[in-house]
Amino acid sequence: MSAYSDRLDRLRATMKATGTDLVALGPSSHMIWLSGVSPHGDERPVLLLVSQDHAGFLMPALNADAARTATDLPFETWDDAEGPDAALARLLQAANIDGSPSVVIDETMRADFALLLLDALPGARRRFTVDTVGALRARKDTSEYDALKKSALLNDAAMRAGFEALRPGVTEREIATIVRDYYKAQGAAPEFTSVCFGANGAFPHHAVGDTKLAPGDAVLIDTGGRIDGYPSDMTRVGYLGSAPEGFADVHTVLESAVQAALAAARPGVRASDVDRAARDVIAKAGYGAYFLHRTGHGLGLDVHEPPYITGTSETVLEEGMVFSIEPGIYLPGKFGIRLEDIVILRADGPEILSGMPRAAVVAGNRDA
Amino acid sequence: MSAYSDRLDRLRATMKATGTDLVALGPSSHMIWLSGVSPHGDERPVLLLVSQDHAGFLMPALNADAARTATDLPFETWDDAEGPDAALARLLQAANIDGSPSVVIDETMRADFALLLLDALPGARRRFTVDTVGALRARKDTSEYDALKKSALLNDAAMRAGFEALRPGVTEREIATIVRDYYKAQGAAPEFTSVCFGANGAFPHHAVGDTKLAPGDAVLIDTGGRIDGYPSDMTRVGYLGSAPEGFADVHTVLESAVQAALAAARPGVRASDVDRAARDVIAKAGYGAYFLHRTGHGLGLDVHEPPYITGTSETVLEEGMVFSIEPGIYLPGKFGIRLEDIVILRADGPEILSGMPRAAVVAGNRDA
Repeated sequence: MSAYSDRLDRLRATMKATGTDLVALGPSSHMIWLSGVSPHGDERPVLLLVSQDHAGFLMPALNADAARTATDLPFETWDDAEGPDAALARLLQAANIDGSPSVVIDETMRADFALLLLDALPGARRRFTVDTVGALRARKDTSEYDALKKSALLNDAAMRAGFEALRPGVTEREIATIVRDYYKAQGAAPEFTSVCFGANGAFPHHAVGDTKLAPGDAVLIDTGGRIDGYPSDMTRVGYLGSAPEGFADVHTVLESAVQAALAAARPGVRASDVDRAARDVIAKAGYGAYFLHRTGHGLGLDVHEPPYITGTSETVLEEGMVFSIEPGIYLPGKFGIRLEDIVILRADGPEILSGMPRAAVVAGNRDA
Repeated sequence: MSAYSDRLDRLRATMKATGTDLVALGPSSHMIWLSGVSPHGDERPVLLLVSQDHAGFLMPALNADAARTATDLPFETWDDAEGPDAALARLLQAANIDGSPSVVIDETMRADFALLLLDALPGARRRFTVDTVGALRARKDTSEYDALKKSALLNDAAMRAGFEALRPGVTEREIATIVRDYYKAQGAAPEFTSVCFGANGAFPHHAVGDTKLAPGDAVLIDTGGRIDGYPSDMTRVGYLGSAPEGFADVHTVLESAVQAALAAARPGVRASDVDRAARDVIAKAGYGAYFLHRTGHGLGLDVHEPPYITGTSETVLEEGMVFSIEPGIYLPGKFGIRLEDIVILRADGPEILSGMPRAAVVAGNRDA
C-alpha cells in the first residue's frame, strides 16, 4: 500500500500547486496507478475522488467486497434500486467540496460518469488530468522503468518471431497470430498487433486482414504485449525478397528523422521541438505531406499516455519520461514505413529500450 | 450498406418523435450498430453526428482511409497539429445545428469526447441514448436473433466443458482457461469468464483466482463468448461431491424466482414488474437482503445494454427485446448462487435461448 500512499501524497502536493480542489478518476489506468483498484467495468458509475480532506470511492454495492480486497480507501456504496446520486452527495460532503471548485476530470471515463459528477457540481471549473495525474505518471520511477524494459526486450523477440515467419502466401493474420502466441508463451498478454503487407502499410492504423504476402511486398509490423502490468510498443519494417521501388530512400529519410528526434530530446526541451526535428527532416526530403501523425506518445500503464510529442505540445520534457519516437511516411497504393522506438529520457538524452536495430528486415535473409 | 441505411432512417424517425435535433455517438457498439464503423480507439476524438439534414463523422486524418473501407458516410477530418475544433465546427454546420439543440450523447464515449461536443454547443439540452438508439437496439431483428441463438448454444457447450473439468484441487483459473479455450476452438472469442469456488461465489463479480476446489464446495460459473459479433451470457451453479449446507434450499428459491420473472415478462409489462416478481419470491423466502443486484440486463452487440430489468425501470417491455433473468443470493463466507438465462420476448412470453437446464451440476455425476 505504501506506493499508493506515496502517489496520493504527491498528487495532493500537485493539486495544491495547481489550485485543484478535486480530482475525479474513473475506472482507468489513472485509478490503477493511484489506488491499485481495477473495478469491474460496466455502466454502473465508479469514481475515485481525491481532495485535501478525503480520498474515497463511489462504488456499486455489488462490487464493494471485491474492490475491498485491493484498497483500504473508504467507499460510498449504492445499489441498483436507489442509484448513485445520494452516495455521490455523501462522498462530495466527505471531500468537503462545495461552491465553485476547480475539478480535474479523468478524460478517459465514460461520458455519463463525468456528467453525473459535473451535474452535482454546477459551479465547477473543469479540466483534464494533463498537469496533475498525467504529469505525475509521465515521470517513471525505477520499478516502472524495470517493467517497461522487460516488456520491450520481450517485444523484440516477439517482433523477430513475426519477421522470421514471413514467406510467400502467408497472410497478415497468420503472422499476427504467431506474434500474439509468442507473447502468450512467455506469460505476457498480447496488447495489439498490426501486420501490413504491401499497400496496406499506407493505412497508419491498418490492423490485420487476409492479404497474402508476395515477393517484392513491403512488410510493416507494429506490435506490443503486456507483462507485469506494463506494455511495449514498437514498429519495424522489411520486405520479402526485393524492396519495392522507393523503399530504401523512404527508409533512409525516416532513419534520419528518428536520429534528429533523438538528438533533440533532452530534459528542458519542448515536446514540439522533438516533433519538429523529425518533421523537418521528412519535409526537406519532400515527404512532408505523407507524414500523417504526431512523432510520438508517452507509454506507461497505458500504451498511449502523456507526454504527446506533437507539433503544438507545450509540454517540457523531463528526466524519467518515457515516450515513442515514430515518424512515418505513407505512400497510398505503394507502401508505408514507420520506425518506432520507445525511449526513456535520461539527463543526457534518450535511452532506447529495445535492442533491435531499425534496419529493414529482409525476409529469409534478415540483417536484424 | 442497406441494413445501416435502414437503421439511419429509423433513428431519424425516432429523433423526430422525441424532439431530438442531434445524436452524437462515440467509438462504441452504438456506432457499430448504426454504421458498421469500429474505429481505432484512442484519445483522438471520433464522433458520428446525425441530424435530419446530415450524418457524418469527425475523424482523425490518420484513421480516415481505414474507416473509409467500412462506410460511405462523409468525414470531417483533422490532424494532430490542428486538433479537432475546426473540423467539429464544420461538421456541426453541415448538420445544421445551432441555437439550443436537443442533443443525445452516447453515454459510453470518453468524457473528453463528450465535453468537446458540449463545449461547442453551450446552449444544448442533453440526455443519453436510452429512448433513441437504445430503444431501437433493444428490439432485435431476425438476423440478430439468429446470431444470439447461435452464440447461446455455443455457450452451453463451453459451460459444460467447464463443469466437466471439475475435480479436487483444480483452480478457478484452470477451469476458466478450459472454458475460454473452448470458445477459441469453436472460432469464438472469450468475452468474460467468472469461476467462483466456495465462498468466492458470494462476491457477485468475483472473476478468477488460484483458489483450489475441495469436496463440498459450491461452484458458480458465469461466462460468455462472442461469435459473429454477438455475445452470450449465462450462469450455472453446482458443487463437488456434496452440496454445502443450505445450497439446495437457496437453489430452489432462485429457481422459483426465475419462474416468477419468466411468468411476469410479457410485451406491455414494465421491466420493474419483472424485477419485482423475482424479488418478491426471494424476499418471502427470507433472503431479500442477499439479492444484491437487479434482475437482468439487455444483451445484443453489448453484453450489458438496455433494457435493464431493475426495481425502478419505467421501460415497457416489447416483443423482440433480449435480456437476462438472473436473480442471485449471496451468503458471505458460505457460497453464492445465481441462475442466469438470456431470453427473447415473444408475443406470448419469453423464449430462453439456452438449452441447458438450470439444475445444479453435481461434479462427476452431472445431471445437466
